[in-house]
Amino acid sequence: MRFSLIIIGNELLNGKIQDLNTHFLASELFQRGFELRTSQLIQDNESEFQTALSAHLANSEIVIITGGLGPTKDDLTKKMLAKFFGLKMTFHQEAYDLVKSHYQRANRTYDKEKSDYHNLPQEFTALYNPQGNAPGIFAQKDEKKIFCLPGVPSEFESMLLEEVFPRLEKISEKKSMRHLIYKTWKLHESQIFNDVCPKLWEELEKYGEVSSLPHLLGVDIAVKIDGIDHHKLQTKQKAIHALMLNSPLKDYIWHIGPETVAEVIINQAKKKNLKIGFAESCTGGLLASKITDISGSSSVFWGSIISYSNEVKINTLNVSPKTLETYGAVSKETALEMAIGAKQELGVDIVVTTTGIAGPGGATDTKPVGTVGIGFATKNRSDSELLYFRGKRTVLKERFATAALFKLLEVINEF
Amino acid sequence: MRFSLIIIGNELLNGKIQDLNTHFLASELFQRGFELRTSQLIQDNESEFQTALSAHLANSEIVIITGGLGPTKDDLTKKMLAKFFGLKMTFHQEAYDLVKSHYQRANRTYDKEKSDYHNLPQEFTALYNPQGNAPGIFAQKDEKKIFCLPGVPSEFESMLLEEVFPRLEKISEKKSMRHLIYKTWKLHESQIFNDVCPKLWEELEKYGEVSSLPHLLGVDIAVKIDGIDHHKLQTKQKAIHALMLNSPLKDYIWHIGPETVAEVIINQAKKKNLKIGFAESCTGGLLASKITDISGSSSVFWGSIISYSNEVKINTLNVSPKTLETYGAVSKETALEMAIGAKQELGVDIVVTTTGIAGPGGATDTKPVGTVGIGFATKNRSDSELLYFRGKRTVLKERFATAALFKLLEVINEF
Repeated sequence: MRFSLIIIGNELLNGKIQDLNTHFLASELFQRGFELRTSQLIQDNESEFQTALSAHLANSEIVIITGGLGPTKDDLTKKMLAKFFGLKMTFHQEAYDLVKSHYQRANRTYDKEKSDYHNLPQEFTALYNPQGNAPGIFAQKDEKKIFCLPGVPSEFESMLLEEVFPRLEKISEKKSMRHLIYKTWKLHESQIFNDVCPKLWEELEKYGEVSSLPHLLGVDIAVKIDGIDHHKLQTKQKAIHALMLNSPLKDYIWHIGPETVAEVIINQAKKKNLKIGFAESCTGGLLASKITDISGSSSVFWGSIISYSNEVKINTLNVSPKTLETYGAVSKETALEMAIGAKQELGVDIVVTTTGIAGPGGATDTKPVGTVGIGFATKNRSDSELLYFRGKRTVLKERFATAALFKLLEVINEF
Repeated sequence: MRFSLIIIGNELLNGKIQDLNTHFLASELFQRGFELRTSQLIQDNESEFQTALSAHLANSEIVIITGGLGPTKDDLTKKMLAKFFGLKMTFHQEAYDLVKSHYQRANRTYDKEKSDYHNLPQEFTALYNPQGNAPGIFAQKDEKKIFCLPGVPSEFESMLLEEVFPRLEKISEKKSMRHLIYKTWKLHESQIFNDVCPKLWEELEKYGEVSSLPHLLGVDIAVKIDGIDHHKLQTKQKAIHALMLNSPLKDYIWHIGPETVAEVIINQAKKKNLKIGFAESCTGGLLASKITDISGSSSVFWGSIISYSNEVKINTLNVSPKTLETYGAVSKETALEMAIGAKQELGVDIVVTTTGIAGPGGATDTKPVGTVGIGFATKNRSDSELLYFRGKRTVLKERFATAALFKLLEVINEF
């Protein structure tokens, strides 16, 4: 079963909003053992639509279209679809009932003279939209299945799971594909495959498709294995494990599996019964937000003091004004005092801190944009260091936060 | 000039990472008066590549390809491109020199037997990559320009600005397109266009292409106007302004322009010389992170106390244990006490707070997942309310943070 996604949206192509639906569809398909073949973003006009739909129907069994189902005049998807298949737009009782009941729940009255939600191309079925007004639509045409869903991510997501997947028989079948992921740190991609393990790639390739994904502080190596036979999959998996864990790369693996560094941190902290906190300056809440994105984080994450101003560093974190004056807010010394102060204030076992220059302003002669002090404190020890990254403001915030998470993982590993 | 983007990446199509390059390219083009025609994500294989490249070259003058330029065996883009145009892969001195100097700067030696960075399809030129090792490549073929850039966002972004745009003459010309954006709140899309201003869309359409983008708490209405004559553009712009500001919608416009709510908050707070702080529970740092994403926020944003545990609410924010016991952590009462306590602790003019249930756990009989208490305190007054949203954990964090930002904007407007 091959899947195509067509995303209709001028707002995406002129940079006003970011597409989130491709990523969601891709990862949901992948978890069920399927892969998205392609995803294409197109302008909201007839000729682009006709071209894209022809191309995608030629190569995929399932075509999902999103966007352009709303109530305003720039929402043309249903009409373009009717034209493509040579169908009339007709009043659709089921769609009408769905929309009417939606309006009633919000204490509003649906007026079918003013809105168009209840008109669908003939032969199409209405799909229930639990989060919004516009129903989705669905039809089967010459062995191909066509779904149209709203582009709003929350609506797209719930309808994909509740309306689309249940209509695809094979998707609920047993998984026949696995991805083994080895997450490494402290080496570049070329160091791994040229110097440390020059034969690793070829050896892994005997078992499945190998890919390598470099990150800020490391590289994820993935091997995709498939097969219907559970036993054979297990054998492949064992062989790959043995290869990786007997290679010189083993000392650089920080996790085996798809989990993010934040998820690994939460799991480890739970196991070791550790309370975690942060004091953040330059990351401005992003570090804590990455941890609180993880469900269950509240059992180990106590809190964070975001001390963007020096006043908060002094008053709440007990950083000495003299340290700020002598070494500056962006310094090893301040990062360390923030850690010690926050550990006391938050009453936790481990604090990690960030204080840096995310730019574009704020650089000094000795401290360029991208400089960050990362500190930590535990009951046993405390330390800090200065690191340097490149990028624009939001990229630097990401990088600073990632560096702080890896520091936290290192410290947790000591417990 | 029509632009196509082809993104090669199995990691994107299996949901491991999110594409960020489309959004960047789209918004940079748009700022220069151009629009991205289409963007397509394809698998890293020969036949998908050939199909996509043929299709995109047929309809766009500029085709930008990203991904698959790295040093590992799954990086096939250059070879596929050579095959497509019937070119040989050859040693390229300029590419070799670029990569060699990159390696030298990192105190490493480039070994041309082990890596492939220096081999390009004949007739292609190497493009300098300031952020990474892999050079980009470029060629002009039959009136079409083809660029290949690395997929890593920071590399893609800097090469787009420094290598691609300077090679496109027209892109630095004077802008001939403008987008007028009116940001509204407190009304649904269908309320605006059916009830409050039923003729507005048609009236705006006389001047340009109208679009409407619904958000969590409001709707952005945009009108795209173009023309070469500066004076005519001004006239159109004035007419649209008059239409909007004489319509009943005028009371619902919170901002005119492309700025986000966080940017508007920073600008207003600067003008009014206000110091801002937060106390966050359920948003876990996201609220502060949205503010600190904005360059210049440090002049008005003092800090935030992320009180994920009740201990931090009690000790740092001075919330009464009795309030927590009687009303619960997710309540109007706690949201209010957090605001009053944080205002004192942070020494700021305005505090806004969040305390809610982002799920999937934590719901009670009376408080479902999606419940959030939003509070605020200023020197003049303080108040709080409970709101309800839907979505999964990270979506709810986004919605809670957005609701808190709009509350903050409301409070700032009172000053």
